[in-house]
Amino acid sequence: MAGLPTITGFRRSPDGGRGLARDLRVRWALEEAGQSYAVELLDFAELKSHRHLARNPFGQIPTYASEGLVLFESGAILWHLGQEHPVLLPAESKARARAVMWMFAALNTVEPPIFESSLARVLERDRPWFAERQEMLEGRVRGVLGRLADRLGQGEWLEARFSAGDLLMVSVLRRLGGTGIIEDWPNLAGYVARGEARPAFQRALAAQRTEAEAVRARG
Amino acid sequence: MAGLPTITGFRRSPDGGRGLARDLRVRWALEEAGQSYAVELLDFAELKSHRHLARNPFGQIPTYASEGLVLFESGAILWHLGQEHPVLLPAESKARARAVMWMFAALNTVEPPIFESSLARVLERDRPWFAERQEMLEGRVRGVLGRLADRLGQGEWLEARFSAGDLLMVSVLRRLGGTGIIEDWPNLAGYVARGEARPAFQRALAAQRTEAEAVRARG
Repeated sequence: MAGLPTITGFRRSPDGGRGLARDLRVRWALEEAGQSYAVELLDFAELKSHRHLARNPFGQIPTYASEGLVLFESGAILWHLGQEHPVLLPAESKARARAVMWMFAALNTVEPPIFESSLARVLERDRPWFAERQEMLEGRVRGVLGRLADRLGQGEWLEARFSAGDLLMVSVLRRLGGTGIIEDWPNLAGYVARGEARPAFQRALAAQRTEAEAVRARG
Repeated sequence: MAGLPTITGFRRSPDGGRGLARDLRVRWALEEAGQSYAVELLDFAELKSHRHLARNPFGQIPTYASEGLVLFESGAILWHLGQEHPVLLPAESKARARAVMWMFAALNTVEPPIFESSLARVLERDRPWFAERQEMLEGRVRGVLGRLADRLGQGEWLEARFSAGDLLMVSVLRRLGGTGIIEDWPNLAGYVARGEARPAFQRALAAQRTEAEAVRARG
């Protein structure tokens, strides 16, 4: 009686269905793994409900529940899926460690300045310091991207083959979509495009877009 | 010819030896594992050297090298050590997934607002917006701490036993030392104190302090 793994996502994503919320990372990973799943969409009020806080004390999406195991943090969910799906994490121990390394690099080194910059665009747009501070933040983002671009070079993926490290890195870089920043590094722009071209990504994006449209249609 | 694992740290840490740099997390983990190690201390200029960028393209410490495997990102290094040392990651698969979850939570949910707040204290102290923005940042930090404190309750650790998830969470919370913020949640303050009281933490802290003093003594 295992049933399908169940993940959570926003009922009304702040990004309007562009697939920038963190549930897309988990959907993409499940699609790479060929694993069917169920989705529970949550209103903002439900994120702070006792029921959801029991799954994730920080009241965020996504969460993952399957066979008595409940997880939050997209990185941890991908790591868990990678235990059984080598498309996400290679079986060989050194290659696996390097893939895990890129997962942490995406989430702890590359995402924070990108996240701060997009958060400021939402929360601090009307503050008197916005323009000056945004320039500082963009400088931090560009510093990290330049290093990443140097390392990637003309490689297809960050290591010899695609892994959950690339899945997270591409997802994090997608947050910059529309800013024009990433286009200054054509190899990074190509890397993101390669990630987005994967059939599993396309299926994940379509699934969350279909759900978002169904929610809007119901009003 | 394996030799000792070699990690990197700051020759002159910006925190003056209080153990807030990220190499302490790796030292602590190595001490928990009972694993001897060598340390290579780097000047700030060396962080951007070709040699170090080959280890870590982002030019940061710590890195880890052992038996042909080179890693950066403290989270990834701890994960790797946890493969052979159950004190860091339990062997049972669900318990292990929950420990990995707390590692990601420490680094991707709890550390970013704390890091932003301490970064602003360094980089934005002289800016006209500093006080007003610091209030916003402290609000974000307090929001996350409140949720974490609710989950921890009167527990000793985040799950049934100590893991690399606690090691990282305590390390991240230690960045707040001296701000007086964490003391508003006595259970979190006690949690940090329990982490710091572990003999492995004490050995790691003493080792990096001794190195820092030796560097200062050489002038």
